[in-house]
Amino acid sequence: MSDDEAFMQQALALAREAATLGEVPVGAVAVHDGNIIGTGFNRREVDRNPLAHAEVLALDAARRHLGVWRLTGVTLYVTLEPCAMCAGALVQSRVTRLVFGAMDPKAGAVGSLYNLAEEPRHNHRLQVTRGILAEDSTTLLKTFFGRLRAKRRDN
Amino acid sequence: MSDDEAFMQQALALAREAATLGEVPVGAVAVHDGNIIGTGFNRREVDRNPLAHAEVLALDAARRHLGVWRLTGVTLYVTLEPCAMCAGALVQSRVTRLVFGAMDPKAGAVGSLYNLAEEPRHNHRLQVTRGILAEDSTTLLKTFFGRLRAKRRDN
Repeated sequence: MSDDEAFMQQALALAREAATLGEVPVGAVAVHDGNIIGTGFNRREVDRNPLAHAEVLALDAARRHLGVWRLTGVTLYVTLEPCAMCAGALVQSRVTRLVFGAMDPKAGAVGSLYNLAEEPRHNHRLQVTRGILAEDSTTLLKTFFGRLRAKRRDN
Repeated sequence: MSDDEAFMQQALALAREAATLGEVPVGAVAVHDGNIIGTGFNRREVDRNPLAHAEVLALDAARRHLGVWRLTGVTLYVTLEPCAMCAGALVQSRVTRLVFGAMDPKAGAVGSLYNLAEEPRHNHRLQVTRGILAEDSTTLLKTFFGRLRAKRRDN
Protein backbone atom coordinates (compact mmCIF):
# COMPACT_ATOMS: atom_id res chain seq x y z
CA MET A 1 0.00 0.00 0.00
CA SER A 2 1.36 3.44 -0.92
CA ASP A 3 1.64 6.26 1.64
CA ASP A 4 -1.26 8.02 -0.10
CA GLU A 5 -3.44 4.94 0.29
CA ALA A 6 -2.42 4.50 3.92
CA PHE A 7 -3.38 8.09 4.82
CA MET A 8 -6.58 7.81 2.80
CA GLN A 9 -7.47 4.71 4.84
CA GLN A 10 -7.25 6.94 7.93
CA ALA A 11 -9.54 9.48 6.27
CA LEU A 12 -12.00 6.70 5.38
CA ALA A 13 -12.01 5.52 9.01
CA LEU A 14 -12.99 9.08 10.03
CA ALA A 15 -15.72 9.13 7.36
CA ARG A 16 -17.14 5.92 8.88
CA GLU A 17 -17.18 7.66 12.29
CA ALA A 18 -19.25 10.46 10.73
CA ALA A 19 -21.73 7.92 9.36
CA THR A 20 -22.27 6.40 12.83
CA LEU A 21 -23.37 9.89 13.99
CA GLY A 22 -25.79 10.20 11.07
CA GLU A 23 -23.52 12.64 9.23
CA VAL A 24 -22.73 12.46 5.52
CA PRO A 25 -19.56 10.31 5.65
CA VAL A 26 -16.59 12.45 4.67
CA GLY A 27 -13.24 12.29 6.49
CA ALA A 28 -9.95 14.18 6.22
CA VAL A 29 -6.43 14.05 7.61
CA ALA A 30 -3.69 16.68 7.39
CA VAL A 31 -0.15 15.31 7.10
CA HIS A 32 3.16 17.09 7.70
CA ASP A 33 6.59 15.43 7.53
CA GLY A 34 4.88 12.04 7.37
CA ASN A 35 2.83 12.63 10.53
CA ILE A 36 -0.88 13.23 10.91
CA ILE A 37 -1.20 16.68 12.55
CA GLY A 38 -4.94 17.20 12.11
CA THR A 39 -8.06 15.14 11.53
CA GLY A 40 -11.71 15.90 10.88
CA PHE A 41 -14.98 14.43 9.78
CA ASN A 42 -18.20 16.09 8.72
CA ARG A 43 -20.06 17.31 11.83
CA ARG A 44 -22.61 19.70 10.33
CA GLU A 45 -25.67 18.23 12.03
CA VAL A 46 -24.21 17.35 15.45
CA ASP A 47 -22.45 20.70 15.77
CA ARG A 48 -25.25 22.66 14.04
CA ASN A 49 -22.42 24.23 12.09
CA PRO A 50 -22.57 24.64 8.31
CA LEU A 51 -18.80 25.24 8.25
CA ALA A 52 -17.92 21.98 10.07
CA HIS A 53 -16.79 20.07 7.00
CA ALA A 54 -14.06 17.43 7.37
CA GLU A 55 -11.46 19.56 5.57
CA VAL A 56 -12.11 22.73 7.62
CA LEU A 57 -11.80 20.81 10.90
CA ALA A 58 -8.58 19.07 9.78
CA LEU A 59 -7.08 22.40 8.64
CA ASP A 60 -8.06 24.07 11.91
CA ALA A 61 -6.37 21.28 13.89
CA ALA A 62 -3.28 21.48 11.65
CA ARG A 63 -2.80 25.24 12.07
CA ARG A 64 -3.22 24.88 15.84
CA HIS A 65 -0.59 22.12 15.81
CA LEU A 66 1.91 24.11 13.73
CA GLY A 67 1.15 27.46 15.41
CA VAL A 68 1.21 29.33 12.08
CA TRP A 69 -1.43 30.15 9.50
CA ARG A 70 0.65 29.15 6.47
CA LEU A 71 0.36 25.38 6.17
CA THR A 72 3.27 25.06 3.76
CA GLY A 73 4.42 21.44 3.41
CA VAL A 74 1.05 20.05 4.50
CA THR A 75 -0.83 17.44 2.44
CA LEU A 76 -4.58 17.25 2.99
CA TYR A 77 -6.24 13.87 2.38
CA VAL A 78 -10.01 13.84 2.02
CA THR A 79 -12.36 11.06 0.93
CA LEU A 80 -14.49 13.30 -1.33
CA GLU A 81 -13.74 16.15 -3.74
CA PRO A 82 -13.87 19.39 -1.71
CA CYS A 83 -16.71 21.91 -2.14
CA ALA A 84 -16.02 25.59 -2.96
CA MET A 85 -15.71 26.58 0.72
CA CYS A 86 -13.18 23.82 1.46
CA ALA A 87 -11.21 24.30 -1.77
CA GLY A 88 -11.05 28.01 -0.93
CA ALA A 89 -9.92 27.18 2.62
CA LEU A 90 -7.10 25.00 1.21
CA VAL A 91 -5.94 27.93 -0.94
CA GLN A 92 -6.19 30.39 1.98
CA SER A 93 -4.15 27.97 4.14
CA ARG A 94 -1.40 27.64 1.49
CA VAL A 95 -1.62 23.84 1.76
CA THR A 96 0.96 22.31 -0.59
CA ARG A 97 -0.85 19.20 -1.77
CA LEU A 98 -4.39 17.85 -1.92
CA VAL A 99 -5.21 14.15 -2.29
CA PHE A 100 -8.82 13.14 -2.60
CA GLY A 101 -10.93 10.06 -3.30
CA ALA A 102 -14.24 10.25 -5.16
CA MET A 103 -15.34 13.09 -7.43
CA ASP A 104 -18.44 15.07 -6.37
CA PRO A 105 -20.23 15.95 -9.63
CA LYS A 106 -22.88 18.04 -7.81
CA ALA A 107 -20.75 20.33 -5.67
CA GLY A 108 -17.08 19.48 -6.26
CA ALA A 109 -14.81 22.49 -6.74
CA VAL A 110 -11.57 20.71 -7.71
CA GLY A 111 -12.47 19.50 -11.19
CA SER A 112 -16.25 18.99 -11.25
CA LEU A 113 -18.01 22.40 -11.18
CA TYR A 114 -14.74 24.36 -11.32
CA ASN A 115 -11.16 23.94 -10.21
CA LEU A 116 -10.35 26.34 -7.39
CA ALA A 117 -7.26 24.42 -6.20
CA GLU A 118 -5.37 24.74 -9.49
CA GLU A 119 -6.69 28.18 -10.54
CA PRO A 120 -3.87 30.12 -12.26
CA ARG A 121 -5.36 33.50 -11.18
CA HIS A 122 -5.07 32.66 -7.46
CA ASN A 123 -1.97 33.62 -5.47
CA HIS A 124 -1.55 29.95 -4.45
CA ARG A 125 -2.11 26.67 -6.24
CA LEU A 126 -2.03 23.13 -4.89
CA GLN A 127 -0.64 19.91 -6.33
CA VAL A 128 -3.67 17.66 -6.74
CA THR A 129 -3.96 13.86 -6.82
CA ARG A 130 -7.41 12.43 -7.55
CA GLY A 131 -9.08 9.04 -7.23
CA ILE A 132 -7.16 7.49 -4.29
CA LEU A 133 -9.43 4.73 -2.85
CA ALA A 134 -12.30 6.46 -4.64
CA GLU A 135 -14.42 3.31 -4.76
CA ASP A 136 -14.28 2.87 -0.98
CA SER A 137 -15.47 6.46 -0.55
CA THR A 138 -18.26 6.05 -3.11
CA THR A 139 -19.45 2.80 -1.49
CA LEU A 140 -19.55 4.49 1.92
CA LEU A 141 -21.59 7.43 0.57
CA LYS A 142 -23.98 5.21 -1.41
CA THR A 143 -24.63 2.97 1.60
CA PHE A 144 -25.26 6.04 3.78
CA PHE A 145 -27.74 7.67 1.39
CA GLY A 146 -29.41 4.31 0.65
CA ARG A 147 -30.07 3.79 4.38
CA LEU A 148 -31.29 7.39 4.72
CA ARG A 149 -33.79 6.91 1.90
CA ALA A 150 -35.00 3.59 3.40
CA LYS A 151 -35.45 5.26 6.80
CA ARG A 152 -37.45 8.10 5.24
CA ARG A 153 -39.66 5.60 3.42
CA ASP A 154 -40.35 3.80 6.72
CA ASN A 155 -41.36 7.01 8.51
CA MET B 1 -29.23 56.62 5.02
CA SER B 2 -30.70 53.28 3.88
CA ASP B 3 -30.71 50.18 6.11
CA ASP B 4 -28.07 48.65 3.85
CA GLU B 5 -25.83 51.68 4.34
CA ALA B 6 -26.42 51.69 8.09
CA PHE B 7 -25.39 48.04 8.45
CA MET B 8 -22.44 48.57 6.13
CA GLN B 9 -21.30 51.41 8.40
CA GLN B 10 -21.18 48.83 11.20
CA ALA B 11 -19.11 46.51 9.00
CA LEU B 12 -16.76 49.41 8.17
CA ALA B 13 -16.31 50.14 11.88
CA LEU B 14 -15.24 46.50 12.37
CA ALA B 15 -12.85 46.78 9.41
CA ARG B 16 -11.23 49.79 11.12
CA GLU B 17 -10.82 47.67 14.27
CA ALA B 18 -8.97 45.06 12.16
CA ALA B 19 -6.64 47.79 10.83
CA THR B 20 -5.68 48.88 14.35
CA LEU B 21 -4.49 45.29 14.96
CA GLY B 22 -2.43 45.34 11.76
CA GLU B 23 -4.89 43.11 9.93
CA VAL B 24 -6.12 43.73 6.38
CA PRO B 25 -9.23 45.83 7.14
CA VAL B 26 -12.32 43.80 6.26
CA GLY B 27 -15.42 43.72 8.47
CA ALA B 28 -18.74 41.85 8.37
CA VAL B 29 -22.08 41.79 10.16
CA ALA B 30 -24.84 39.19 9.95
CA VAL B 31 -28.38 40.57 10.24
CA HIS B 32 -31.62 38.71 11.00
CA ASP B 33 -35.03 40.36 11.42
CA GLY B 34 -33.34 43.75 11.45
CA ASN B 35 -30.93 42.82 14.28
CA ILE B 36 -27.20 42.19 14.15
CA ILE B 37 -26.72 38.59 15.32
CA GLY B 38 -23.06 38.13 14.38
CA THR B 39 -20.01 40.27 13.70
CA GLY B 40 -16.48 39.61 12.56
CA PHE B 41 -13.34 41.22 11.26
CA ASN B 42 -10.30 39.71 9.65
CA ARG B 43 -8.08 38.15 12.36
CA ARG B 44 -5.74 35.98 10.30
CA GLU B 45 -2.51 37.26 11.79
CA VAL B 46 -3.54 37.73 15.44
CA ASP B 47 -5.29 34.34 15.57
CA ARG B 48 -2.72 32.61 13.32
CA ASN B 49 -5.77 31.26 11.54
CA PRO B 50 -6.06 31.29 7.73
CA LEU B 51 -9.81 30.69 8.04
CA ALA B 52 -10.46 33.69 10.32
CA HIS B 53 -11.91 35.96 7.64
CA ALA B 54 -14.56 38.52 8.64
CA GLU B 55 -17.36 36.59 6.92
CA VAL B 56 -16.51 33.21 8.49
CA LEU B 57 -16.42 34.74 11.98
CA ALA B 58 -19.73 36.56 11.47
CA LEU B 59 -21.37 33.38 10.12
CA ASP B 60 -20.04 31.36 13.04
CA ALA B 61 -21.47 33.88 15.52
CA ALA B 62 -24.81 33.93 13.65
CA ARG B 63 -25.26 30.14 13.68
CA ARG B 64 -24.39 30.06 17.39
CA HIS B 65 -27.00 32.78 17.98
CA LEU B 66 -29.74 31.03 15.98
CA GLY B 67 -28.83 27.51 17.16
CA VAL B 68 -29.27 26.04 13.67
CA TRP B 69 -26.95 25.56 10.72
CA ARG B 70 -29.36 26.88 8.10
CA LEU B 71 -29.07 30.68 8.21
CA THR B 72 -32.24 31.26 6.20
CA GLY B 73 -33.39 34.89 6.40
CA VAL B 74 -29.91 36.15 7.26
CA THR B 75 -28.26 38.99 5.32
CA LEU B 76 -24.48 39.15 5.45
CA TYR B 77 -22.87 42.58 5.04
CA VAL B 78 -19.16 42.68 4.25
CA THR B 79 -16.93 45.57 3.22
CA LEU B 80 -15.09 43.64 0.48
CA GLU B 81 -16.15 41.08 -2.14
CA PRO B 82 -15.80 37.62 -0.53
CA CYS B 83 -13.05 35.18 -1.56
CA ALA B 84 -13.87 31.63 -2.74
CA MET B 85 -13.75 30.22 0.81
CA CYS B 86 -16.15 32.84 2.16
CA ALA B 87 -18.50 32.74 -0.84
CA GLY B 88 -18.60 28.95 -0.44
CA ALA B 89 -19.29 29.35 3.30
CA LEU B 90 -22.23 31.66 2.48
CA VAL B 91 -23.66 29.01 0.16
CA GLN B 92 -23.10 26.22 2.72
CA SER B 93 -24.85 28.35 5.37
CA ARG B 94 -27.88 28.99 3.11
CA VAL B 95 -27.59 32.73 3.80
CA THR B 96 -30.43 34.50 1.97
CA ARG B 97 -28.75 37.74 0.95
CA LEU B 98 -25.23 39.13 0.55
CA VAL B 99 -24.45 42.86 0.52
CA PHE B 100 -20.87 43.92 -0.09
CA GLY B 101 -18.84 47.06 -0.66
CA ALA B 102 -15.78 47.11 -2.90
CA MET B 103 -14.96 44.56 -5.60
CA ASP B 104 -11.77 42.48 -5.14
CA PRO B 105 -10.39 41.99 -8.67
CA LYS B 106 -7.55 39.74 -7.43
CA ALA B 107 -9.45 37.19 -5.33
CA GLY B 108 -13.15 38.08 -5.39
CA ALA B 109 -15.49 35.14 -5.96
CA VAL B 110 -18.80 37.00 -6.32
CA GLY B 111 -18.30 38.60 -9.72
CA SER B 112 -14.55 39.15 -10.16
CA LEU B 113 -12.81 35.77 -10.69
CA TYR B 114 -16.09 33.81 -10.68
CA ASN B 115 -19.52 34.08 -9.14
CA LEU B 116 -20.01 31.36 -6.54
CA ALA B 117 -22.93 33.11 -4.78
CA GLU B 118 -25.18 33.17 -7.84
CA GLU B 119 -24.02 29.88 -9.44
CA PRO B 120 -27.04 28.15 -11.04
CA ARG B 121 -25.49 24.69 -10.54
CA HIS B 122 -25.32 25.08 -6.74
CA ASN B 123 -28.17 23.87 -4.52
CA HIS B 124 -28.44 27.39 -3.03
CA ARG B 125 -28.07 30.86 -4.49
CA LEU B 126 -27.96 34.22 -2.73
CA GLN B 127 -29.48 37.57 -3.61
CA VAL B 128 -26.51 39.88 -4.11
CA THR B 129 -26.21 43.67 -3.77
CA ARG B 130 -22.85 45.18 -4.72
CA GLY B 131 -21.13 48.52 -4.20
CA ILE B 132 -22.68 49.70 -0.90
CA LEU B 133 -20.25 52.29 0.56
CA ALA B 134 -17.61 50.81 -1.73
CA GLU B 135 -15.49 53.96 -1.72
CA ASP B 136 -15.19 53.96 2.08
CA SER B 137 -13.99 50.34 1.94
CA THR B 138 -11.51 51.08 -0.86
CA THR B 139 -10.11 54.11 0.98
CA LEU B 140 -9.63 52.03 4.14
CA LEU B 141 -7.78 49.29 2.23
CA LYS B 142 -5.62 51.74 0.24
CA THR B 143 -4.62 53.62 3.40
CA PHE B 144 -3.75 50.33 5.12
CA PHE B 145 -1.59 49.01 2.29
CA GLY B 146 0.00 52.44 1.78
CA ARG B 147 1.11 52.52 5.43
CA LEU B 148 2.34 48.91 5.19
CA ARG B 149 4.51 49.76 2.19
CA ALA B 150 5.87 52.88 3.91
CA LYS B 151 6.71 50.83 7.04
CA ARG B 152 8.51 48.20 4.94
CA ARG B 153 10.53 50.93 3.21
CA ASP B 154 11.59 52.32 6.59
CA ASN B 155 12.78 48.90 7.86
